[in-house]
Amino acid sequence: MDRPSHFRSVQPGYRWDGVPYLPYKDDGSAPFKDISRQVLFSDPALGCEWRYFEMAAGGYSTLERHEHAHAVMILRGTGLAIVDGEVKPVQTHDLVSIPAWTWHQFRATDNAPLGFMCMVNTLRDKPALPSAEEREAMRENPDVAAFLDGRLLVTTP
Amino acid sequence: MDRPSHFRSVQPGYRWDGVPYLPYKDDGSAPFKDISRQVLFSDPALGCEWRYFEMAAGGYSTLERHEHAHAVMILRGTGLAIVDGEVKPVQTHDLVSIPAWTWHQFRATDNAPLGFMCMVNTLRDKPALPSAEEREAMRENPDVAAFLDGRLLVTTP
Repeated sequence: MDRPSHFRSVQPGYRWDGVPYLPYKDDGSAPFKDISRQVLFSDPALGCEWRYFEMAAGGYSTLERHEHAHAVMILRGTGLAIVDGEVKPVQTHDLVSIPAWTWHQFRATDNAPLGFMCMVNTLRDKPALPSAEEREAMRENPDVAAFLDGRLLVTTP
Repeated sequence: MDRPSHFRSVQPGYRWDGVPYLPYKDDGSAPFKDISRQVLFSDPALGCEWRYFEMAAGGYSTLERHEHAHAVMILRGTGLAIVDGEVKPVQTHDLVSIPAWTWHQFRATDNAPLGFMCMVNTLRDKPALPSAEEREAMRENPDVAAFLDGRLLVTTP
């Protein structure tokens, strides 16, 4: 059979056959640290894409919000996440729901990577970053302020 | 905060907080064996659902096809899958693409469970089962015949 296979094997280091290993964002306009992006499924027959993001130890995603929602499962490691003012430790296979227009961010622990899968509508709006005023309003919650400052980092045993 | 949490923790045995543990299908009209269903995300804001299916050792899903596509990642164990006449062993974190109208089935190994996640459009058609003639046509491929007879079962070390 000359047609492409329907199977793509996982490779060491949370890579996959035929899946390009990409930077998290294509430009440097938003703050983030040590994070990669792999698009596992992007099929015109499906209404959503399925991506895998991985932060190196101490890395973090962009603090942002948007009209579109995210469905997230942690695939590797442990870390911390914030969704709409709720700050929680996360571990492998935990689920995180990110509704429309909620501020959210993920952080890896300081000694191990954090990888998560994210399902998202293929057609979606661009993320928005917090203004200085919005950031200050978020910081009124002490847990959020500690998260944003990286003071809540936990260590994987 | 009285609003529901955005976080749902994984529990032992590949269960999740707040996720009902369901039978694979709601009726007995299609053949399958020892398989459960958990809907991890079903959100009107998302075009797809994200489900987790798990077969006990020796279990299998229904051999079926439909207009809608599936995007699959193995989450637990090893097994075998068939997609459109292609028969392959699968292991944890492998990816499987199931295009429209392709016959597909998953089988756990004979001594360990096989769990997989499946992304699918929320709005979708009902699966169709093979007629006797379609099943015979599939069996002309010896690998497919061996798969359907359970003669290809591999054992997890």
